[in-house]
Amino acid sequence: MPQYVNIANVISDRIQKGFYRSGEKLPSMREICTSFNVSLGTAQNAYHFLEENGWVIPIERTGYFVRQSQLVKKHLPNVQPVVQEPIDIKNWHSILELAASSPSDGVLQLGRGMPDIDSPSLKPLLKALSQTGKNTDKRALYYDDISGMKKLREQIARMLIDSGCDIAAAELIITSGCQEALSIAIRTVCEPGDIVAIESPAFHGAMQILQASGVRVLEVPTDPITGISIESLEMILEQWPVKLIQVTPNCNNPLGFIMPEERKKELLNLAKKYNVMILEDDIYGDLSYRYPRPLTIKSMDMDGRVLLCGSFSKTIAPGLRIGWIAPARFFDRVLYMKYTGTGSTTSAAQIAVAGFIEDGHYLPHLRKMRTIYHRNLQQTVEWIGEAFPTGIRMSQPQGGYILWIEFPKNFNADAFNKHLLKRKIQIASGSIFSSSERYNHCIRINFGHKLALLKKGIQIMGELLKSESFYGS
Amino acid sequence: MPQYVNIANVISDRIQKGFYRSGEKLPSMREICTSFNVSLGTAQNAYHFLEENGWVIPIERTGYFVRQSQLVKKHLPNVQPVVQEPIDIKNWHSILELAASSPSDGVLQLGRGMPDIDSPSLKPLLKALSQTGKNTDKRALYYDDISGMKKLREQIARMLIDSGCDIAAAELIITSGCQEALSIAIRTVCEPGDIVAIESPAFHGAMQILQASGVRVLEVPTDPITGISIESLEMILEQWPVKLIQVTPNCNNPLGFIMPEERKKELLNLAKKYNVMILEDDIYGDLSYRYPRPLTIKSMDMDGRVLLCGSFSKTIAPGLRIGWIAPARFFDRVLYMKYTGTGSTTSAAQIAVAGFIEDGHYLPHLRKMRTIYHRNLQQTVEWIGEAFPTGIRMSQPQGGYILWIEFPKNFNADAFNKHLLKRKIQIASGSIFSSSERYNHCIRINFGHKLALLKKGIQIMGELLKSESFYGS
Repeated sequence: MPQYVNIANVISDRIQKGFYRSGEKLPSMREICTSFNVSLGTAQNAYHFLEENGWVIPIERTGYFVRQSQLVKKHLPNVQPVVQEPIDIKNWHSILELAASSPSDGVLQLGRGMPDIDSPSLKPLLKALSQTGKNTDKRALYYDDISGMKKLREQIARMLIDSGCDIAAAELIITSGCQEALSIAIRTVCEPGDIVAIESPAFHGAMQILQASGVRVLEVPTDPITGISIESLEMILEQWPVKLIQVTPNCNNPLGFIMPEERKKELLNLAKKYNVMILEDDIYGDLSYRYPRPLTIKSMDMDGRVLLCGSFSKTIAPGLRIGWIAPARFFDRVLYMKYTGTGSTTSAAQIAVAGFIEDGHYLPHLRKMRTIYHRNLQQTVEWIGEAFPTGIRMSQPQGGYILWIEFPKNFNADAFNKHLLKRKIQIASGSIFSSSERYNHCIRINFGHKLALLKKGIQIMGELLKSESFYGS
Repeated sequence: MPQYVNIANVISDRIQKGFYRSGEKLPSMREICTSFNVSLGTAQNAYHFLEENGWVIPIERTGYFVRQSQLVKKHLPNVQPVVQEPIDIKNWHSILELAASSPSDGVLQLGRGMPDIDSPSLKPLLKALSQTGKNTDKRALYYDDISGMKKLREQIARMLIDSGCDIAAAELIITSGCQEALSIAIRTVCEPGDIVAIESPAFHGAMQILQASGVRVLEVPTDPITGISIESLEMILEQWPVKLIQVTPNCNNPLGFIMPEERKKELLNLAKKYNVMILEDDIYGDLSYRYPRPLTIKSMDMDGRVLLCGSFSKTIAPGLRIGWIAPARFFDRVLYMKYTGTGSTTSAAQIAVAGFIEDGHYLPHLRKMRTIYHRNLQQTVEWIGEAFPTGIRMSQPQGGYILWIEFPKNFNADAFNKHLLKRKIQIASGSIFSSSERYNHCIRINFGHKLALLKKGIQIMGELLKSESFYGS
C-alpha cells in the first residue's frame, strides 16, 4: 500500500467517525507532513486521492475541506425488530414486474441493481467479446469444464487476494451469474424445510432463491452501519435449528454498509459456536469507496465454513452472466449441482472477462467506477435533500450504487412506484426486501446512472411526492 | 414440401422397411416418372436427394442402388427387462471423468455428444458473435428478460413449426443449455421422493439431474427401433405413482431411434390415462436424417401435459449454452425456477444465435450437418464391421451422431475405456446410462468427427480389442 493511501484512509476514517466535521477545514499540507512524517508530495497525493474519492473538496488558497454533502445526510433508517417465527417468502409477482421492464422501453431504471455500462473503460471488454468470434481455436464454441475456464478462475483467484482470501483457482467454480452461485450454494447446504437466517432488509433475488429451495427464513435485525445484529442472531441460533446464515457484509444490498472487521469476526465465531454455515455474497465488494477494499468473512474462515459468492454483474456487466463460487468444504457437491443445473457456463463471456482482467483493464475500470459512484452518491443525497419532503431517512452507502430511503411509516412505496412508472421511472419498492411487510414504506434506488438522468429522476420523484399523497391512514 | 422430397421419402421409407434390400437396384428414372407421374427432372432430384443423404449410390450407366453399408448392419442391441423397484441414480464419478477431458489435451473425444464445430456453415455464427462486441446499443451487456431475448424466442417458435408445434414466442423460455431446461422442468413437476419413468438406456446427464432433484427412477425397457415400451410402461403406471415420464423420442440418445408416430400417440394417451406429465427432450430432433424432421409428442398434446426442451448445443455449438423450454401449463413456475436458478441467460450468445437463424443460416447448416452425419454413420458402421470382433450389436441411428454398441454380456466397457484413454481415445462406457448396471458391456461413440479421425479411432479400438481381453469370467 502506498504511504499516501494509508494517510488518506486515516483521514477518511476520521471524517466518518465525526472527528472532522462536514464543512470543516482539514489539516494543512504542512501539518500532514509533520504529523505523518512524510514529504510534501505524499501529503499532496493523499489529498488528491481523498478528493478523487469524494471525501474532500479543495478551496483555492485556503486548503481542503470535508465535503459539504456529508452535512446534509439524513438520519439513518430504523432497525426493525426481530421476526418471531421462520416464515415463507412471498412477493414473486412484484419482482417479476421489476425485472420485466427493459432499458429499451424508455423507462429510467432506478429500481434494478445494474452498473453503468457506458463507461469507456469497458471498451477493451467489448473488444475482447468481439475477439471471441474471431479466434481460430473456436474455444467459444466448445463445452467448457464444468468448473469453468481455468484462465478465468486463475484471474479471479488473483483478485481475491485483495479481499484477504487465499483461494486457489482449483477451489473456484464459475457460475451463470451470482444468482446460480447462490442457488447452488443454498441447495447444497439446505434441504427443503430447513431454516436460513438472513439480513433484514435483504436482497430480493436471494430471498426468492431461498423460497424456490423450499427453506424458511428468519429475518434478523440489521443495522445500517454495522450490519446484521450479532446479538439478535445469537438469540435466534439459541432458539432455532438454523442451517445457514446468508449475509452481504460488504457494500450491502440494500443498506450499503460495510460490516466492521470486528463484527465479521464475531459473526464467524458465532457460526462456529453453533456449527452453522455462512453464505457470503460479495457481489458489490469490489465497489467499496475505500481502497484497499474490505476483507471478506471468508478471509477469516479456517474451517471451510464460509461459501463465498461473487460476480462481474455489478462491476462489469450483468448480461455476461459470469459469477463464481468458492464452495469451501462443499466443493464436490457444488460442482455436482453446477453440472446438473446448467452443465457448464457460456464460453465466450468467460474468455472475454478473463482477457479483460489479464490485460490489466479490470482494476483501472474498478477505480474509475468507484470514484464515479461515490461522487454520484454525494450528488444524489444533495438532490434528494432538496427535492424530497423532510422526515425521510437514508442509508450511508460505503460502496456500490444502491441507496435505501425510508419514508414515514404510513408511506405506501408500492403505490408510489406504480405512479412513477406512468412517468417512465422505476424504483424498487421496499416491500420486496422482506416477507414480513416491514419495508412497505421504503424504496431502493440505483444512483449508478448518468448524473443528468439521476437529477431528472429525483426531480420527478420530488414533484410527485409533493403533488400526490402516498400516505395511508 | 417439394415433390422430389416426397418421392425420396417414399423410397427411403421402403428401404428402411426392407422392401428394397441393401445392394439392390432401385427403379429406373423412367419407372419413377411413370409410377409417381412426375417429370424426369423431379425423378432425378429425388435420387440426388437420396444420394446426398446417404441412402443410395449411383453406378454409372446402370442406375441407383441401395447403399451397400445397409447390408453390414449388425444385429440390434438387446432390450433389457424392466427394473422391479424405483432406484437411486449413481455413477456421478464416471461422468465427471468423461466431462473432465478437454479437446486441448489431444484426446479424441468419441465419448461426448459434441457436434462438429469446424463446419464452414458456422462462419456466419462466429461473425454474429464477434458482432455482439461491436453493437453500439450494448445489448450484450444488459440483463436480458428472465424468459430470454424476444427475437430469439420468435426464431425458435418459427423453427418449432417443422416439428408440428404451434407454440408462440411468449410460451418459450430461454435457458442456459438444455441441461438447465431439464433441471428446471424436473424440479417444477417433481418433489424429492417422487418417481420418474425413464428410457433404458437413458442420457446420463438427465439421469444425474434426476438424482440431484432427489427423485427416484424406474428404468423402462426401450426398443432400439420403436422406443420406450408402452406395454411395460403401462404395467409400471398401474403399479407405481409415477409423476413424470422423461423421454427423448427423436434421434434418441443413446439408441438413435425415432419413435414411430403411432407409438408417440400411444405414449401420450397413456400419460393422459394415468394423469402423468411428459418431459420431452428434443435436443437431437433437428438432426433427423429424413426431411421433414419427425413430429414431437408435444405437437400432439392438447392439454399442456408435455414440457418440451431443446437446445442449440447439438446442432450449432455447446459452448453457447443456449437452450429453451416450452413449459406448457407450468409456464409461471418454470419462469420462477429460471429466475431463481440463473436470473437470465447470457445475452451475447442469444443475440448471435438469433441473428444466425434470422439471416437464414441455420437451415442450410442443418441440411449440411445431417448429410455429413448420415454419411459418417454409414462409414463408421462399415469400419466397425471390419475392425471389431464378431458378436457385437449396434443401434441404427435415424439422426444425430451417436452410435450404441453392445458387446457380449461379459465385456467390461469401463476397463476398455480406461485402456483406450492411455491411447488418447475416450468413449462413453455404457455403465453411466443406467443405475442398475445393465449396460456395463456397452459403449456409446460419437461419429460426428472428421472421417480421418474416426477411422483412426476405430482402428485403434479394433487393435486393442484384439490384443487385450476385456471379457470377465
